[in-house]
Amino acid sequence: MIIRIDELSDVPIYQQIRNQIVMGISSGELEAGEQLPTVRALAMEMGINTMTVSKAYQLLKTEGYIMTDRKNGARIRSEIEKQGRISTANRSELKRIVSEARLSGVPKNEIIKLVNEYYGG
Amino acid sequence: MIIRIDELSDVPIYQQIRNQIVMGISSGELEAGEQLPTVRALAMEMGINTMTVSKAYQLLKTEGYIMTDRKNGARIRSEIEKQGRISTANRSELKRIVSEARLSGVPKNEIIKLVNEYYGG
Repeated sequence: MIIRIDELSDVPIYQQIRNQIVMGISSGELEAGEQLPTVRALAMEMGINTMTVSKAYQLLKTEGYIMTDRKNGARIRSEIEKQGRISTANRSELKRIVSEARLSGVPKNEIIKLVNEYYGG
Repeated sequence: MIIRIDELSDVPIYQQIRNQIVMGISSGELEAGEQLPTVRALAMEMGINTMTVSKAYQLLKTEGYIMTDRKNGARIRSEIEKQGRISTANRSELKRIVSEARLSGVPKNEIIKLVNEYYGG
C-alpha cells in the first residue's frame, strides 16, 4: 500500500498516516495479519521523522487496529473491535461535511454515492 | 441559536464556532440576512476570548458565509456561493469516517440515514 501525505493539509502527518492505514484496512487493501513496514523503513521511504511514524503506529495500536510484537513488528489485527456505532466526534464531523456540501449546492444523492463508494459492496 | 463548545474536542474553539454557524445556516436555524451577535457579546456569553470569536467570524467571512459592516456587524450572507462540489479535504474526511464506521460494524444504511437527517428534506 502506498501512503500519500498531503503537505498542504491541516491534518498532522502522523494522523494522515493513521487515517490512510485505517482506510486501507476498510477497503481491504490491507488484510488481517498483514505486516506493516517497520517504523524506520516507513520513515525512510516517506522521508519523514521516525517519531512521526512511531506516533501513528502507537495511535493505531491504542485504537486496536494493529498489534505489535518484538518478533513480527506491527501487523493488522484480525479481530478489530466492532463497537457498532459512529463516534460522537465523527457524527459531528459528518454533520459539518454534509452541511457544507448542502450549502455548496451538492445534491444529497452525490453524498450518498460517495458513502456507497467508500463503504464498498 | 445556541453555540455549544466541546472542551474535550481536538477541534479548536474558533473552528467549533465556525462549524456550528455553518451547520446553523444549513439547517435553516440561521437565516439569510440574520444578524450574528457582536464579537464582544458572543465572547462574553461564551466566556471566551474575543480573539477566538473574531477568528471564527474572520474565517466565515473569508469563506463567504457571512458579511460584515460597521453599521450592522456580522450577518449571514443571502447569496452563499454554490461551488457545487465537495472539497478534497471533505471527501477525504468523509472517506475516513465511512471507513471507521465500516470497521466498527456500523451498517451502511445507518450512515446514509445520518446523511439524510443532516441534509434535511
